[in-house]
Amino acid sequence: MDNLTVALDAMSGDFGPRVAVPAALQALTQHPNLHILLVGNPTEIESLLSQKENSKSSDILSRLTIIESTSVITHDAKLSVAIRHSQGSSMRIALELVKSKKAQACVSAGNTGALMGLAKLLIKPLPDIDRPALMAVLPALNQGKTVILDLGANAECDSNMLVQFAVMGSIMAENILGIESPRVALLNIGEEEVKGLDSIRAAAATLRAHHKINYIGYLEGNELLTGKTDVLVCDGFVGNVTLKTVEGLIEIFLSSLRLTITRKSWWMRILGIWLQRRVSKNFGHLDPQQYNGACLLGLQGTVIKSHGSANQKAFVAAIEQAIQSIEKNIPDRIAMSLSLALPKSDNS
Amino acid sequence: MDNLTVALDAMSGDFGPRVAVPAALQALTQHPNLHILLVGNPTEIESLLSQKENSKSSDILSRLTIIESTSVITHDAKLSVAIRHSQGSSMRIALELVKSKKAQACVSAGNTGALMGLAKLLIKPLPDIDRPALMAVLPALNQGKTVILDLGANAECDSNMLVQFAVMGSIMAENILGIESPRVALLNIGEEEVKGLDSIRAAAATLRAHHKINYIGYLEGNELLTGKTDVLVCDGFVGNVTLKTVEGLIEIFLSSLRLTITRKSWWMRILGIWLQRRVSKNFGHLDPQQYNGACLLGLQGTVIKSHGSANQKAFVAAIEQAIQSIEKNIPDRIAMSLSLALPKSDNS
Repeated sequence: MDNLTVALDAMSGDFGPRVAVPAALQALTQHPNLHILLVGNPTEIESLLSQKENSKSSDILSRLTIIESTSVITHDAKLSVAIRHSQGSSMRIALELVKSKKAQACVSAGNTGALMGLAKLLIKPLPDIDRPALMAVLPALNQGKTVILDLGANAECDSNMLVQFAVMGSIMAENILGIESPRVALLNIGEEEVKGLDSIRAAAATLRAHHKINYIGYLEGNELLTGKTDVLVCDGFVGNVTLKTVEGLIEIFLSSLRLTITRKSWWMRILGIWLQRRVSKNFGHLDPQQYNGACLLGLQGTVIKSHGSANQKAFVAAIEQAIQSIEKNIPDRIAMSLSLALPKSDNS
Repeated sequence: MDNLTVALDAMSGDFGPRVAVPAALQALTQHPNLHILLVGNPTEIESLLSQKENSKSSDILSRLTIIESTSVITHDAKLSVAIRHSQGSSMRIALELVKSKKAQACVSAGNTGALMGLAKLLIKPLPDIDRPALMAVLPALNQGKTVILDLGANAECDSNMLVQFAVMGSIMAENILGIESPRVALLNIGEEEVKGLDSIRAAAATLRAHHKINYIGYLEGNELLTGKTDVLVCDGFVGNVTLKTVEGLIEIFLSSLRLTITRKSWWMRILGIWLQRRVSKNFGHLDPQQYNGACLLGLQGTVIKSHGSANQKAFVAAIEQAIQSIEKNIPDRIAMSLSLALPKSDNS
């Protein structure tokens, strides 16, 4: 693969450059063909770089470019205000680098609404897509994986949007997970046809009749992570709450287990190490920090949203997602596959 | 406390009388002042009773009355059809027993929509309540508890309904959990004021100004079970998906841990018993079967919805909830407390 260039919104997230800078250095170390455009406050970034050992390698430094930004879009900014005042912000500049083809992908841990709004404005949705959706690949317990969308880009969705998400999710499962004719399900509050919201029932009717989608019906919350479907579709509100619920529970669970194991006498601690390995084997792949990075799907370029609370490891995982999307040429693949007829949304 | 009478919809749930009959016998054994009206097919019920040891006690049999029903409302029945054809069904008869004051509470594991619709029709909502909500008490990790509603009675909710749920939840936390000035939060996709749906933002504005509610703001999915709030309010769609997600994950964890522990050599199995005790101590109280039974709140009587998949232990837990609601006089307490001004819903 040729050189890859990723623009990072270094000022985003709860920790800004304190996480983005070391994550960038780690990603550059791991990927010799990667270039990073680090968008942010040059003084802050340079001060952090000077503290880092591996930044002294001239090879790594030669693949890192600092791009100055003059402002940051805050987490609590209202969408319209954020977009109106976005000029010069790290998020907007990172997206503009993708728009102008100076970068092939952008990663930001910033305000989701603003990222979605600016991405739509600058990078534009694909021809048949009304609104992009946030997608992540969740691990299933049986070591399988599930593509889930929307995770918060669109709090309210009509049935056509849900159908478009199903089509995009299906393409992702085929291309990223390598699953032929992936199973697609809608998240609902019951398995019976009559259950749920009008938008879901209407989407189900369209998907049932869709000859290119392997639609398998409704799935309930308790079936998440069971690997019963390859693609799970829901509106952004439900998707966001559900994903965070899963993440919160897994974190509670893993940390409580660690507590059970480590607060013991010496022999229990030895035992604990053995047990911790077994637990890691069973649950470690569910650790939220391992699969950070939601892809803003349905755009004419790659935009990855990292968790605001992402640590270095998680931010690197988001950069890896960007690299994978560039290497697999995801936006083009979706555009090509969308030649199949898609309904247009009333919300567009 | 005087005698308690609970009507059971014995034909409801995935297992019908096979779970309801032994659960009834167990509850009668545990509560000497309990009477149960078992609504269902007499032949099926009597056949099951004849197989049970404890049904031979004349004391228990004297506190059990079989009431004949001639039909069952199915899980996949459409609400309007279910209600139109409800005459003679076990669910309707059980609710009618509450209406006619022959029972003080009713427990059903049947179709949630039908239970909600028939309860509203027969038992009527309290004067200031537009629509009843399904409420459960979820365990928190710190051994605290959280009242959560709505869990699926109303898939769509306007802001006034959310405010009413907040008021009812607050009353429940005060009376059932004994918490003075309980903290009330709205489930949302961010902590910032601008986040989420219009209905949630409007409800937040009302609750902030409400002098009788200790409103603490938005809570996200990952904060569930952390005990950060005493009452968590959401619409029925999100609540249902979230609760099922939590239940599914906990079941996956508990069963995977059992698997990790038991598939070992003899010394690991001994070790396993010790570990299992520790794990049960930490997580056992989160077992969904332990806190089965959602209360249909806001009615002029007590109606408890059990999980369709409830086993005997879980069905007994639902009966216990009914007993608790009767003993604490919950409907009357809510009615009294609702004297404070409540907004009326547009959806009513």
